[in-house]
Amino acid sequence: MSDLIIRNCRPNGGDTADILIRNGRIAHIGTVTDAPGVAEEDAGGRIAIPGLVDTHTHLDKALLGHPWYRNDVGPNLLDKIDNERAVKKALKLDPYTQAMRQSLLSLSWGTTHIRSHVDVDTDGGVSAVEGVMRAKAELAGTVDIEIVAFPQSGLMRRPGTLELMDQAMAMGADMVGGLDPCGIDRDPKGHLDAIFALAEKHGKPMDIHLHEPAELGAFSMEMIFERIEALGMEGRVAISHAFCLGANDWNRTQGLIDRCAELGVAILTTAPASRDVPAIKRLDAAGVKVGAGNDGFRDTWGPYGSGDMLERAMFVGMRNNFRRDVEVERALAICTTGGAEVMAIEDYGLTEGGLGDVVVVEGAALADAVSRHAVRPLVVRGGKVVARDGETLRKAP
Amino acid sequence: MSDLIIRNCRPNGGDTADILIRNGRIAHIGTVTDAPGVAEEDAGGRIAIPGLVDTHTHLDKALLGHPWYRNDVGPNLLDKIDNERAVKKALKLDPYTQAMRQSLLSLSWGTTHIRSHVDVDTDGGVSAVEGVMRAKAELAGTVDIEIVAFPQSGLMRRPGTLELMDQAMAMGADMVGGLDPCGIDRDPKGHLDAIFALAEKHGKPMDIHLHEPAELGAFSMEMIFERIEALGMEGRVAISHAFCLGANDWNRTQGLIDRCAELGVAILTTAPASRDVPAIKRLDAAGVKVGAGNDGFRDTWGPYGSGDMLERAMFVGMRNNFRRDVEVERALAICTTGGAEVMAIEDYGLTEGGLGDVVVVEGAALADAVSRHAVRPLVVRGGKVVARDGETLRKAP
Repeated sequence: MSDLIIRNCRPNGGDTADILIRNGRIAHIGTVTDAPGVAEEDAGGRIAIPGLVDTHTHLDKALLGHPWYRNDVGPNLLDKIDNERAVKKALKLDPYTQAMRQSLLSLSWGTTHIRSHVDVDTDGGVSAVEGVMRAKAELAGTVDIEIVAFPQSGLMRRPGTLELMDQAMAMGADMVGGLDPCGIDRDPKGHLDAIFALAEKHGKPMDIHLHEPAELGAFSMEMIFERIEALGMEGRVAISHAFCLGANDWNRTQGLIDRCAELGVAILTTAPASRDVPAIKRLDAAGVKVGAGNDGFRDTWGPYGSGDMLERAMFVGMRNNFRRDVEVERALAICTTGGAEVMAIEDYGLTEGGLGDVVVVEGAALADAVSRHAVRPLVVRGGKVVARDGETLRKAP
Repeated sequence: MSDLIIRNCRPNGGDTADILIRNGRIAHIGTVTDAPGVAEEDAGGRIAIPGLVDTHTHLDKALLGHPWYRNDVGPNLLDKIDNERAVKKALKLDPYTQAMRQSLLSLSWGTTHIRSHVDVDTDGGVSAVEGVMRAKAELAGTVDIEIVAFPQSGLMRRPGTLELMDQAMAMGADMVGGLDPCGIDRDPKGHLDAIFALAEKHGKPMDIHLHEPAELGAFSMEMIFERIEALGMEGRVAISHAFCLGANDWNRTQGLIDRCAELGVAILTTAPASRDVPAIKRLDAAGVKVGAGNDGFRDTWGPYGSGDMLERAMFVGMRNNFRRDVEVERALAICTTGGAEVMAIEDYGLTEGGLGDVVVVEGAALADAVSRHAVRPLVVRGGKVVARDGETLRKAP
């Protein structure tokens, strides 16, 4: 835990100020005159924001550092899932190494907190969880990682997976994951009963992938709601993607959104351009907690993405037709304070007493910073410089 | 017209070769051994593509070079239109200067051909057309610009505009533009009769903005078809945006798409994430010509965009859920050969006898280049180096 003065910055796009960090916490924002012996950085009048929060990604399987992967995979979801397991084997992809690479790449963009789903399946067992747990331990306090044990290849359709999920939780995974109980697993009752039982057994919260659109997703979501109520899991379940909340039937969809608010179900979105997605303003109006994530990127699923949550804020804004500055600022807030609330990050934000995490960005206004998403000149974590000009001080393996 | 050897490049992502340009044309692709006295560039094994083609933008009114514009504009299309005229006046925005800035920025990304809509209205008269015509003349052979006289503020609803459109065409604008005959102008018959009459009078082709969704856009599109047939304008009309071709009613929409193919109507898309848009694969299957454009960017309409057509190819790919390499390559092709066909650029492409326009890009494969859309190391136009490392040799005013 370090001391640092960041001079001449504009916290959250406001007036120019200095930020004094002492013992890793923000001690003062304003004019700092007397702090003898404390190291200084000059932000050159640039905007400072708190650490970016990526609430949905897959640290174990981006292909960072590997040669270009030519994607010829089939059109169905199961094609992609089966292909991924095969490619991981062929490349001998090491989850620890990939997690280190992606986490440090994210840190270079100013991301300080990541929630990662990590594959658990009968091919790889719990080795990916082990690998990402090792990265998590090494990076604690630099990039804080939350691990969701994730049955990517299905749970009921691949016997043995549930036992591995149980093992992953016993090893210390932070959350229980789930995936398309109808679309992938073809057994919604079996799937949801199993993962909720795991969450209850290990006393852990949940984050469930739900790509199922329209009525199918609505059906699965209702079954999730039923189990949240029955088990008293209010406020402890997130649903990722939730494409069914972007469906056309207004009344039907509003009922689901209102239930998310009542049951404290957070919605985590990547705001994909090609799918129906929940509208941010609609979730906000209903009081639903919202975070955003980059999802997997440059992996066997697709070529796009950089790992940058400022770019993701742009995608959130573009998907939601956010054009006014206040709207683009909301898209950014989902990638900072929104994610921080979902991940329950204590003392988050540029405020006295808050975490000494400061990201200096290029741009004359917050919306400009989102639009440009240029290389970050400076990233500070707990009062310590961790990245400069897009390069982390710690190098990835 | 210059001579140049580009050594050690991978034309369109294929095998490594040299490209010999003589008198501004590609003379040979392969191994070049004896070309004494010809200047050389080393592409370092990178991929080379032909010039990028931006078939839909607004050169007269991006705010490039101006301070950040804080966008607080109202939600309606007319709010945005009225606001823009007011801001242009307040900033004394000079269309020539803005066109030079944007064209050279585009050139730094490797864009060699641009179709620009240019505002004609009773506030600015034809001054924007004059300004962009001046930029067009100065940049001829460097960035080739096609000018569409564009009634951004409406035609029938603002008396005097039609006469100004006529004047713009008489001055030498290349195409007649139009805009939402129902949604903006509230007089589809009046609007379409007027612009088609202008096209007939001046013997020029047309490019019509059509944002109207679903049945409203379908109605306007049918009225456009009727006039194309009546006036024998087959192959000479493009429709920009064409959101109605992304509507849900499959049969209704397919009928419109098939008519576009029959009448040679090109569809120009920006692939926005927030709107229903025509699916590229569907247009391809019907044999409709497709180009892409960046539209306005960093202007009073919204903060996003960089002017880069490789980034636009990424947006096209993301909007269409293109993940396989061949799909991403198709998204890129829309921004190169697709646009070149729409703009009828002669001898376009990396082929012997073709234009000596070569853009060197970063990335191991074409899809990688689209995904990264990194700064272009080298842009060559007619055998002459025009930009290096993202900086044009000619500087903008």
